[in-house]
Amino acid sequence: MDAAEFRRRGKEMVDYVADYLENIEKRQVYPDVEPGYLRSLIPEEAPEEAESYEDVVKDIERVIMPGVTHWHSPYFYAYFPTAHSFPAMLADMLCGAIGCIGFSWAASPACTELETVMLDWLGKMLKLPEDFLAGTEGRGGGVIQGTASEATLIAFLAARSKIVKLIQADHPDRSETDIISKLVAYSSDQAHSSVERAGLIGGVRMKKMPTDSKFSVRGAALQKVLEEDRAAGLIPFFFCATLGTTPSCAFDCITELGPICNAEQIWMHIDAAYAGSAFICPEFRPLLNGVEFADSFNFNPHKWLLVNFDCSAMWVKKRSDIIGAFKMEPLYLKHDHQESGIVTDYRHWQIPLGGRFRSLKMWFVFRMYGLKGLQAYIRKHVGLAKEFESLVRADQRFEISADVVLGLVCFRLKGSNELNETLLKRINRARKIHLVPCQLAGKFVLRFAVCARTTESRHVQEAWSHISHLASELLQELHKCQQTQYLAFNIG
Amino acid sequence: MDAAEFRRRGKEMVDYVADYLENIEKRQVYPDVEPGYLRSLIPEEAPEEAESYEDVVKDIERVIMPGVTHWHSPYFYAYFPTAHSFPAMLADMLCGAIGCIGFSWAASPACTELETVMLDWLGKMLKLPEDFLAGTEGRGGGVIQGTASEATLIAFLAARSKIVKLIQADHPDRSETDIISKLVAYSSDQAHSSVERAGLIGGVRMKKMPTDSKFSVRGAALQKVLEEDRAAGLIPFFFCATLGTTPSCAFDCITELGPICNAEQIWMHIDAAYAGSAFICPEFRPLLNGVEFADSFNFNPHKWLLVNFDCSAMWVKKRSDIIGAFKMEPLYLKHDHQESGIVTDYRHWQIPLGGRFRSLKMWFVFRMYGLKGLQAYIRKHVGLAKEFESLVRADQRFEISADVVLGLVCFRLKGSNELNETLLKRINRARKIHLVPCQLAGKFVLRFAVCARTTESRHVQEAWSHISHLASELLQELHKCQQTQYLAFNIG
Repeated sequence: MDAAEFRRRGKEMVDYVADYLENIEKRQVYPDVEPGYLRSLIPEEAPEEAESYEDVVKDIERVIMPGVTHWHSPYFYAYFPTAHSFPAMLADMLCGAIGCIGFSWAASPACTELETVMLDWLGKMLKLPEDFLAGTEGRGGGVIQGTASEATLIAFLAARSKIVKLIQADHPDRSETDIISKLVAYSSDQAHSSVERAGLIGGVRMKKMPTDSKFSVRGAALQKVLEEDRAAGLIPFFFCATLGTTPSCAFDCITELGPICNAEQIWMHIDAAYAGSAFICPEFRPLLNGVEFADSFNFNPHKWLLVNFDCSAMWVKKRSDIIGAFKMEPLYLKHDHQESGIVTDYRHWQIPLGGRFRSLKMWFVFRMYGLKGLQAYIRKHVGLAKEFESLVRADQRFEISADVVLGLVCFRLKGSNELNETLLKRINRARKIHLVPCQLAGKFVLRFAVCARTTESRHVQEAWSHISHLASELLQELHKCQQTQYLAFNIG
Repeated sequence: MDAAEFRRRGKEMVDYVADYLENIEKRQVYPDVEPGYLRSLIPEEAPEEAESYEDVVKDIERVIMPGVTHWHSPYFYAYFPTAHSFPAMLADMLCGAIGCIGFSWAASPACTELETVMLDWLGKMLKLPEDFLAGTEGRGGGVIQGTASEATLIAFLAARSKIVKLIQADHPDRSETDIISKLVAYSSDQAHSSVERAGLIGGVRMKKMPTDSKFSVRGAALQKVLEEDRAAGLIPFFFCATLGTTPSCAFDCITELGPICNAEQIWMHIDAAYAGSAFICPEFRPLLNGVEFADSFNFNPHKWLLVNFDCSAMWVKKRSDIIGAFKMEPLYLKHDHQESGIVTDYRHWQIPLGGRFRSLKMWFVFRMYGLKGLQAYIRKHVGLAKEFESLVRADQRFEISADVVLGLVCFRLKGSNELNETLLKRINRARKIHLVPCQLAGKFVLRFAVCARTTESRHVQEAWSHISHLASELLQELHKCQQTQYLAFNIG
């Protein structure tokens, strides 16, 4: 395919994409396929000879679309949102064309510098403390990670490296493995599985902290475990706080936890993967109070800020902490401007050596929406969640299982876990909308997350009347069944 | 921006991309900017109000392009190639539109299943042993990682987890940290920095093995260090072999190393990040002989197989090894089809929880080039490297520093390291072509890697005459300088 054909095919693809998104509501949100469906639809081997573009394109509807879960359908309410916008897609096309790999300043200066400045822009939108910004002389700064999992892992490893060096400074004879064997890290029992995984990867014990009735870790809980662990000869060094947990969007109390971590020389990392985007609105910014105590902070613009995956924004107060943990300098990566103070080599900030020119997406989205447009988008989603919450609260058969703070509603039928599992199965098998569950204090709970950019009030109303209808059916069946059993019992 | 505007702007962007690529030769391959150039060109904060698309687009040439290193210019010969093709860009547009996150089968069945099947297709192109393929009943299989660094890390962590379990099975009282403190992993002293980093991350000592005159690790070298380390009470568990090292594209001797690793229960991972693409050609496939001894194998189609970044292909013989190391199952990620044998949940195979629908790029590229087209592409690049090699060899002032096997030529002026450093500086400062150096056996060496898809013989000829001209200038200056010194000395 040459550039001339690309012009033609690219424009056709633009239309295909626009058609897909304009008509996404008409597609079934969750597919009907069974595991293994795809293999039988295509050859067992790649073709020897080139195929025509027409042949490839017609297979999109035949092979791919029947197996797609449509994350951007307004009937998709599962997991958390993944961001999606036209400006981000345009920027991604440019990113693909430039196709540079940004591992060092020299590898493509624009790629590195736009990333640093975009993270400053975004940090200012969030009113992050100055310490986290790069500016021209800052000791902190931001980086785009692929996912929040990687940000957590990087923070965890930087903290591990820092504590080992700190202890070895006083006790030069203590080995790294000996120190690591005594380390202990903490997170909420509501934290994302990736936090526990960071502990596994780093070979360090990770303790899950109990949460209060709002599913938040409180200062007293941390204080207690720190005392016990220090008494047992362990070395606490890392606390991963969550703002907006995956199960219920709960918020750890970082205004209590932060000062404890600071006093005890424990690295506090904040994972606000989903909720972070909301902090650009003044009314939600108080949820971030306490960030001034953190060593690192992360959230995913690729979840809720209209920047397509992958774009996970991470800031650190001291870039030397993160660089110190990973720096490697083979000759083929050295360049003239290294270590000149103003230059950032992002390869020292991340697990992969390099990445795509991802900051272009942020630049396009921030400029084409403007801060006000982005705020309006967040507020609309929160409004839709509140609307769904009122519908649930108005129905005596249901209960709300956790405070609705942002775009997630946790709810359930009053009754057993089995009843709610059955309801969810029926919802998902009906294929009209798609939801996933969570577990809160031993209860099986349904999560309704406002996800798609195009979700409107009518979709939420429709979703609720569908759920409510399926619940009525289920409860009636149950009632009949109970009557039959009662009769059977009384006759028998 | 609505779908209607996206149709218009998307088509404009397709033309911009085509224009950029058709005219890339006219742009200076390496930019003139100084560190910090970009910050002063754009506002300090994101705009409050939305800007027009015109405003954003005109800034591409004003802000971005002056700072871009043009990796797809036929004058770019630095690092290794990063892949780029029109079919891959079209697939990426589709990937952005679907915008699903593939962490489990249920999250988007097509995304998971196409990945599994594409890795089988690619494995067959490489004639990988059957063990590495998923098929419908295989115990192995492939996954797309973001980068080779992540593949190495995943293999390393899986191996660490496996050896710990193995030892604990016999000695249930031995703690994980105690075992880890005795572990030792190995790689070539020519291996990529990410291998050493995997050791750092995993908290395990990593030893660099000496290489022979061809920069290859040989069996005898491994045997020797294994004996020493076992005698010292250490536990060897992981060897990362490199096929196509970053400095000189050297090949570790895996036919010797593999049997040793198998006999000693050491996990052998093969990192063929760059060279792997060439193994689709029968004439280069012998370089992969010995892969049958490996536990895991990885290379980057995003380097040399026309699939845009990121797409690093990794295979394992036993998927249970890799899954066992990381499996976490929170309720919100469970789904009906889990563990049904045929279902793959890729979140257990990688560091991030999820990824983009990256297999679409492979599918488009494999079909639109066909195996023969891809082979022709590899052969063309190798041919260009051989052409450059002959030019170097024909010039008595230069020497070739390592065997030219694929698309990389390592060369230098006969003479001091300083002389070669000066030559490289002048080459890069002239901005006509772009190269990076490496160090081989203490010598400063210039690396000429054939990178761009559009590089032709005339570019290689031009690059050589430019280098040769700069070398002549440099040698003449040196000669004059020596004469002056001689005269000064004799008069003085």
